[in-house]
Amino acid sequence: MLCGMQQHDGPLARLRRGHEELVLDLLRRHGPLSRAELGARCGLSRTTLYDIVGDLAATGAVVASVPDAGQRRRGRPVERLALDPAAGQAIGIDLARRAVHVAVVNVAHEVVGTTSRAHAPELDLAGRVALVEEMVDELSGDSLRLAALRAIGVGVVGPVASAPAGPGDAPNAPGAPGFPGTPGAGGHRDALAGLLAKRLGAPVLVDNNTRLAALAESVWGAAADARDVLYVRLSHGVGGGLVVDGALHHGVSGLSGEFGHISVEPRGRRCQCGGTGCLETVASAGAVLEAYRAAGGVADDIAAVTAAALAGEPAAVGVVAAAGRRVGTALAAVCNAIGPSTVVVGGELVAAGAALTDQVRAALAEGLMPVARPLLDLRPAVLGEGGAALGGIALVLHRSPLLSRYPNREDGDQS
Amino acid sequence: MLCGMQQHDGPLARLRRGHEELVLDLLRRHGPLSRAELGARCGLSRTTLYDIVGDLAATGAVVASVPDAGQRRRGRPVERLALDPAAGQAIGIDLARRAVHVAVVNVAHEVVGTTSRAHAPELDLAGRVALVEEMVDELSGDSLRLAALRAIGVGVVGPVASAPAGPGDAPNAPGAPGFPGTPGAGGHRDALAGLLAKRLGAPVLVDNNTRLAALAESVWGAAADARDVLYVRLSHGVGGGLVVDGALHHGVSGLSGEFGHISVEPRGRRCQCGGTGCLETVASAGAVLEAYRAAGGVADDIAAVTAAALAGEPAAVGVVAAAGRRVGTALAAVCNAIGPSTVVVGGELVAAGAALTDQVRAALAEGLMPVARPLLDLRPAVLGEGGAALGGIALVLHRSPLLSRYPNREDGDQS
Repeated sequence: MLCGMQQHDGPLARLRRGHEELVLDLLRRHGPLSRAELGARCGLSRTTLYDIVGDLAATGAVVASVPDAGQRRRGRPVERLALDPAAGQAIGIDLARRAVHVAVVNVAHEVVGTTSRAHAPELDLAGRVALVEEMVDELSGDSLRLAALRAIGVGVVGPVASAPAGPGDAPNAPGAPGFPGTPGAGGHRDALAGLLAKRLGAPVLVDNNTRLAALAESVWGAAADARDVLYVRLSHGVGGGLVVDGALHHGVSGLSGEFGHISVEPRGRRCQCGGTGCLETVASAGAVLEAYRAAGGVADDIAAVTAAALAGEPAAVGVVAAAGRRVGTALAAVCNAIGPSTVVVGGELVAAGAALTDQVRAALAEGLMPVARPLLDLRPAVLGEGGAALGGIALVLHRSPLLSRYPNREDGDQS
Repeated sequence: MLCGMQQHDGPLARLRRGHEELVLDLLRRHGPLSRAELGARCGLSRTTLYDIVGDLAATGAVVASVPDAGQRRRGRPVERLALDPAAGQAIGIDLARRAVHVAVVNVAHEVVGTTSRAHAPELDLAGRVALVEEMVDELSGDSLRLAALRAIGVGVVGPVASAPAGPGDAPNAPGAPGFPGTPGAGGHRDALAGLLAKRLGAPVLVDNNTRLAALAESVWGAAADARDVLYVRLSHGVGGGLVVDGALHHGVSGLSGEFGHISVEPRGRRCQCGGTGCLETVASAGAVLEAYRAAGGVADDIAAVTAAALAGEPAAVGVVAAAGRRVGTALAAVCNAIGPSTVVVGGELVAAGAALTDQVRAALAEGLMPVARPLLDLRPAVLGEGGAALGGIALVLHRSPLLSRYPNREDGDQS
């Protein structure tokens, strides 16, 4: 028996998580094992192992089976333990401004299903959760076993201080900008986590959706081989995320990756954040569209501008390139500070192709220490709009297997 | 017995470190314990515990003793295990441009001795190591037991990719700027680590000395309560370090914390890094001294300028304030990106007091997202020129107790 399990972050709690990971890892690598074989391989006492295996079995992650009589030689049958292939399922959900994206992976971390639904930006929290339920029901039909659900990672708009397992763990920044009707800030987020945990019967982790897109690109996407990644998203707003030593960085009160609010024009225009001349005021989809129209171009939306830029239309190339240079210059300061190996550029503007990325790359190189220039790689994002939902899953997989303990708790998000 | 100990970073190796930490932690909290008591508290099998304790005893970290006959009731005496109070000693060394600093802590992490020696900047590697030996000999007289030495953390000038336990683990950036006669780059650093490990009989960890000063401020200094810290040093050069989630950040090839090479004047002067208009060209001690002279001030060195600024002399206040504003503006971009809770300003320029820090603070606030302004704290560094040596110790203490295993290996730095 382990003592002091009330400590959540002490060496005993860490050790406990280590024991669970070890048992799961041995079963993953060796296939079914008896308790005695597990014990011999993991170095744990009989009591500790019994305890760990009991908990893992209670969650459904590990199943016990007895080989049939034909395979047995003699004596009492020896029970063997194995991973339940369906037990590790995780759902990722992105509650974006105008759409919901859902993705599901199995225990082997393969994506077994994805789905997206657009909705009006005014849709309220209850409406969004109802939409999620419908989408999850669809997926349940073929690929999802709700009873085997391990955890749910949810991306929301707005700052989130950390990815808490319980409400109140991570108060949002006082006065953090929230968007009407989105669950990004404070109480809304907790209400959302509570609702989803109740409806889907699994613990819910919440994080900012742009940050989750960053994590997804670093796990499955453009930077899957890199441990230090800067992800910038040029979209309705300009935001981003940092992956530091393989983990999502949060910063104080969740204000990390706010590249859009780096001031690039001291006497520039007012930004919605309250600042002046922020990168977002010159490099967001809206700002680029406006610049294109001001240059005499005709376009209904940013997709028309990026398509024109891709086709080489001079005015479109010009405004996209100008935005790209501002992005590169702003990010160079950040890259000198944190030395990432990879910069990933995502969001609608990336559809403009080299007209954008070549300029980001050039301005970035110009602002970097010469010695760092050959060490930094710039790549367009590859996961598209489903990225943040996949990031929700990555968030779950980066968490401890302890989460798998409470799959059916009503208040699963309080563990 | 644990299997697979050849894995250095797998779950088994991590578990092994966890077991060692647990045993050390239990002995720290409970005082001497018998093997049976330890076993009951830690949940490890008899074999595993025997193995762990054996290794810890071999390093001298744990000592076994038998209570004398008077205290025994009957039967075979029960051996009790305890921490050796002298076993956790660690040395921190800073090989700065013109001086060597050495600090020593005991197992309780109390600083038991510090010493500094200035030298000519031309002094070569062998000369510096000889100086270190003399200084360590001095400290050995009263406070240091070399046989009980756990590890040595060394700060050097120039980029270091990570804090390796072995040569070759961390190649420096190709073409990284090295300074003649300093061990900052590549082969020099490895030669230094090898020499010191051999002379002092303990494993050697090497890192950039400005980064170690950042770590020290976050462990014992101005930001001792913060987990996300940005440290900037305004001195001969302008450099810094980032502490992210309590750990020193390295970035790719050690190019992290290079705040001095954020470009602040696109058409500014050439920097020694090869870039143009870097922060270092306007906010280093030399740049401020030059600006003061250009403004008609008379001063032999930067200390005279900071003293004049502290006394309110307008020209001195003016040049220091201008440098402070540039620093604040450059750091605001970085703070929007990584969201630290604390910015620490160190180096000779800090002697100017509020003339500097008030302007750094003001420009920082101006460039930060409004919502982040109340969340960021700016403080002057408190550890002075011995900071990096203390950082070397922090580097050792942040490493696993596994290091304590090879205190007498000739090639201690290869473990």
